[in-house]
Amino acid sequence: MDHTHEYPIKDVSLIELRDRLAEFAKVRGWEQFHSPRNLLLALVGEVGELSEIFQWRGEVAKGLPNWSSSDKEHLEEEISDVLLYLVQLADVCGLDLGRAALTKIVKNARKYPACSCPSSSLTDN
Amino acid sequence: MDHTHEYPIKDVSLIELRDRLAEFAKVRGWEQFHSPRNLLLALVGEVGELSEIFQWRGEVAKGLPNWSSSDKEHLEEEISDVLLYLVQLADVCGLDLGRAALTKIVKNARKYPACSCPSSSLTDN
Amino acid sequence: MDHTHEYPIKDVSLIELRDRLAEFAKVRGWEQFHSPRNLLLALVGEVGELSEIFQWRGEVAKGLPNWSSSDKEHLEEEISDVLLYLVQLADVCGLDLGRAALTKIVKNARKYPACSCPSSSLTDN
Amino acid sequence: MDHTHEYPIKDVSLIELRDRLAEFAKVRGWEQFHSPRNLLLALVGEVGELSEIFQWRGEVAKGLPNWSSSDKEHLEEEISDVLLYLVQLADVCGLDLGRAALTKIVKNARKYPACSCPSSSLTDN
Repeated sequence: MDHTHEYPIKDVSLIELRDRLAEFAKVRGWEQFHSPRNLLLALVGEVGELSEIFQWRGEVAKGLPNWSSSDKEHLEEEISDVLLYLVQLADVCGLDLGRAALTKIVKNARKYPACSCPSSSLTDN
Repeated sequence: MDHTHEYPIKDVSLIELRDRLAEFAKVRGWEQFHSPRNLLLALVGEVGELSEIFQWRGEVAKGLPNWSSSDKEHLEEEISDVLLYLVQLADVCGLDLGRAALTKIVKNARKYPACSCPSSSLTDN
Repeated sequence: MDHTHEYPIKDVSLIELRDRLAEFAKVRGWEQFHSPRNLLLALVGEVGELSEIFQWRGEVAKGLPNWSSSDKEHLEEEISDVLLYLVQLADVCGLDLGRAALTKIVKNARKYPACSCPSSSLTDN
Repeated sequence: MDHTHEYPIKDVSLIELRDRLAEFAKVRGWEQFHSPRNLLLALVGEVGELSEIFQWRGEVAKGLPNWSSSDKEHLEEEISDVLLYLVQLADVCGLDLGRAALTKIVKNARKYPACSCPSSSLTDN
């Protein structure tokens, strides 16, 4: 996507999210419910809600050109819900999600070197 | 979780992940495959792989006390894969994931005030 | 499970379900929406709703001994929704789901012979 | 779909599947692993594998016209795996899946009367 947005982007770190969510659960007494498998099933539930937004639309173009602002807002909420449970799942499992994600990108880069991309046979690059 | 880790945590921002993944796809010619619904189904695939790690274990304790380091590493990879597709899905949809996530936390805080937590009726607080 | 139920079980075939659902969609003009990926995402949505029923419960015993009849009814609805979309997905893909399921059971039986079960080392059988 | 197949369709009932799967698990000593949430997570895992088949294809036409027989066979296996875990999940929960599915169809028919289909405003019918 073209990231030349007209509004300032809010950069957020995974640790900031993790800490805010841990505090959120703590002050509400919800930590007792946040076992790994409970959070995983909650994550699956949110992935389901995310899928429902896309289910009857056929193919959807990048940038969601014909979506109403209400539909986009709904999508932002559901995609956020997935992220929030994912961050919490990593937290209760004791994982460093940021480090893990960067490590996975490096591993993927080795697995799929830039020169052997699927489209390489179709272009002169 | 207790976040007093012995090793330095790698803080990573959502924009850093987004930009690295966009570059990753671009240099491999993969942008053509990254339609919203393709990425969504790839996300569902990774959530499936994440679930497979937990499927035959019965309840799992916080911190994964009895897991092998190999199992933990596998979990780190699968949870990262979910995150990486989620970041890319938000990107091709033109969403600011960090802003959306913070907005959702604020909305949740209004929806579930700290004083009306599920355990409030069970304690003296 | 013990299948000595006190009430007569309603046996239903996959073809009966397929035909009823095909007719259901046809008379409502819904066939146009029932592309394979639309139905797949609808299935994922229902799996999410199914997961939400189980998400905060911790481990659940077989037979759901402490569930209210309302919770059980809700579960019956969500598990049915998954089945109905699965049958429709197989149908629009032109697959014979019953034959495929029996074939998979036979394949699994070859892959996991009865004598090499995980618990074989723990018992005298 | 047009169901005038050239080969005889294998009609299979949900009870037949349930009983074969229960026997399958019993003789392998697997019943101990088949708690509701274990089976649910296994189901989510198979839905993930099913999604992976569709993830990079863009929109897919009904009947899968350009798919290889190998790809179709793979699809049959994954869609069957979802069904087999769904049947087992219903079984360990003590539910009558066939009855539940028929009940849900009747409920849906009341909720969406045939005369108020989504396309009704677009046609002369």
